[in-house]
Amino acid sequence: MNGAADNLSRTSGDEGVIVFGPDAAFLLDGGGRIENLTLAYRTYGTLNSERSNAILICHPLTLDQHVADPPPVGGRRAWWTSLVGPGRPIDPERHYIICANILGGCAGSTGPGSINPSTSEPYGLSFPVITIGDMVRAQAMLLDRLGVETLFCVAGGSMGGMQVLEWVASFPGRVFSAVCLASAARHSAQNIALHEVGRQAIMADPDWRKGAYVREGVRPEKGLAVARMAAHITYLSESALTRKFGRELQRDGLSWGFDADFQVESYLRHQGAAFVDRFDANSYLYITRAMDYFDLAARHGGSLSAALAGARHIRFCVASFTSDWLYPTAESREIVRALNVAGARTSFLEIETDRGHDAFLLDEPVLRSALAGFLGSAGRIRGLAG
Amino acid sequence: MNGAADNLSRTSGDEGVIVFGPDAAFLLDGGGRIENLTLAYRTYGTLNSERSNAILICHPLTLDQHVADPPPVGGRRAWWTSLVGPGRPIDPERHYIICANILGGCAGSTGPGSINPSTSEPYGLSFPVITIGDMVRAQAMLLDRLGVETLFCVAGGSMGGMQVLEWVASFPGRVFSAVCLASAARHSAQNIALHEVGRQAIMADPDWRKGAYVREGVRPEKGLAVARMAAHITYLSESALTRKFGRELQRDGLSWGFDADFQVESYLRHQGAAFVDRFDANSYLYITRAMDYFDLAARHGGSLSAALAGARHIRFCVASFTSDWLYPTAESREIVRALNVAGARTSFLEIETDRGHDAFLLDEPVLRSALAGFLGSAGRIRGLAG
Repeated sequence: MNGAADNLSRTSGDEGVIVFGPDAAFLLDGGGRIENLTLAYRTYGTLNSERSNAILICHPLTLDQHVADPPPVGGRRAWWTSLVGPGRPIDPERHYIICANILGGCAGSTGPGSINPSTSEPYGLSFPVITIGDMVRAQAMLLDRLGVETLFCVAGGSMGGMQVLEWVASFPGRVFSAVCLASAARHSAQNIALHEVGRQAIMADPDWRKGAYVREGVRPEKGLAVARMAAHITYLSESALTRKFGRELQRDGLSWGFDADFQVESYLRHQGAAFVDRFDANSYLYITRAMDYFDLAARHGGSLSAALAGARHIRFCVASFTSDWLYPTAESREIVRALNVAGARTSFLEIETDRGHDAFLLDEPVLRSALAGFLGSAGRIRGLAG
Repeated sequence: MNGAADNLSRTSGDEGVIVFGPDAAFLLDGGGRIENLTLAYRTYGTLNSERSNAILICHPLTLDQHVADPPPVGGRRAWWTSLVGPGRPIDPERHYIICANILGGCAGSTGPGSINPSTSEPYGLSFPVITIGDMVRAQAMLLDRLGVETLFCVAGGSMGGMQVLEWVASFPGRVFSAVCLASAARHSAQNIALHEVGRQAIMADPDWRKGAYVREGVRPEKGLAVARMAAHITYLSESALTRKFGRELQRDGLSWGFDADFQVESYLRHQGAAFVDRFDANSYLYITRAMDYFDLAARHGGSLSAALAGARHIRFCVASFTSDWLYPTAESREIVRALNVAGARTSFLEIETDRGHDAFLLDEPVLRSALAGFLGSAGRIRGLAG
């Protein structure tokens, strides 16, 4: 723990930026280093005197630290109010909730859009490739600064769930309980392929300028929008798309052209256009790469249970969604099997829904009540007031 | 039937181009018209004296008339040798096999890359939007010229299957039997969404030039490659990708960059690059649009069985593949239900395979033997020599 902790406000709804260094660079799994590592984070609630009620939320690919309140710009909503907020399973009345924009992100933490201190120019492609492990080590440094030695819980879905698994593998002693939703212990061939399409769409845009678009005053908006559109389809299920849009038209009759005739086309175009306003193309490249590189078992001789061997004392909640074809239930079952071998206490639920991968972000009553039960029970064991 | 028929050679392995008009323009469903409609086609085998052994093959989105022998350029292989050829279910020794490049295509038939006779420039976006119905009416005109009044069979997979259904709906009296593989009677919201991503990728490429790239001496290669990469993933299944590639690397170790580290990335990039050499970007736009517009029931008050009411006398073989998530079995079952209501004799099989949508193009022994049985039995009833 760091002496600076007590200087940090820990009251409800704090927003902060911590700069590490300049005395020590942050060393990366890939061999690179980052000077003046900056993490932008958000907290909700108050750390109790036992420092036992901290929950770290790990955000997915394109989201950020604004878990429970809207980001200051961009007109977006907070992204996890279904599970985080007063009266929710993760509750600022009881928990000290922390979420930091990931290393590599574009919401205040160091990423490829940041200024490289050694050149005073934006990094662009000179930014080193990062890993999920790098993201998690940076989060651990933040917790040191915030005076949090042990997390009551580390929670996340999708890429957030990868960070959760990485936390358990790298810092098991700092975790009391863990929640891993709609995720996987390694990126599948199909997932790598889908990411590669997005990256190629960005890099095909001449305004990408080999990653130097910031310096050249342009942005690869079209390429990034295409990447987002392709990805967005994978976050939904076929039946959800049929239920929401079917073959409904935008106007009376077909255009007999290439306008958005169908509502689903208009919706997708909107998703692409809105994303460009809030996300950085190079961050998209680096974060998808980190996900592709993620393979927890590989670092432990191919054994996921070996990777999670330190999890014996950790209470785990793993959940998947029946219509999630991006991170299907089989991936969660592999995690559960490895946790069982490791001797962790694991609750697993597969939730019936047609909402696809994005279900973990949406108001799913079964998930909410399961999580309330899981965290309530873990909290009683941890001695937290109900 | 047209008097010109007898002037056309009908011996094995003929290649031909027929130009219709100039006396009568080809009228399109969308209200447009095409002067001098040209169809490039390929035949295999000989039309028997009863003119009762003709099989029309309808090709899928990105393929062409070269069903059973390699196209003259491009170094590609014939695309349906698993089912078409000597000793195969569709056999030039017994059948007179016809396949024409679809209207809107880029392998010799009139499409957006053709010269617009009224401007003497390539059509580009002045090409009218076409439908599956337009494609089929053009094929019917070709059959008239070839002296084929009634097809022993019309067969196709994916978009080819849509043409088969359209044949049955529009010209039931000209069809004795029909084979519809891995297809659907309408394009789903997810399928429209996936096509829209491909179109946006093409149109985002500045070398697309609002469709006028031919005139301007460029080609939207990057956009078309991205469209192909995105589509290619949908033609395979997750398990096939895992089986073929898993997380295997291209080289020893990771590049810690954006090179193709994983074999699946390299494979996809190759698919994109190879496609650009053989396909026209505007054709891709128009053909995907025709598929999106396809909804056979919509023209018959929403009733697919009403659309297929004329199929009572037609022997049908419908097949789907368990791992095909683009045209899942449920879509084939809807076709079968409507055919049953219509009173057609329908064989339906769902084939267990992990090869995804592309299974209909591959050597699937169950499909081959089922089709051999179906066509053998239909042929005996039709009086064809075994």
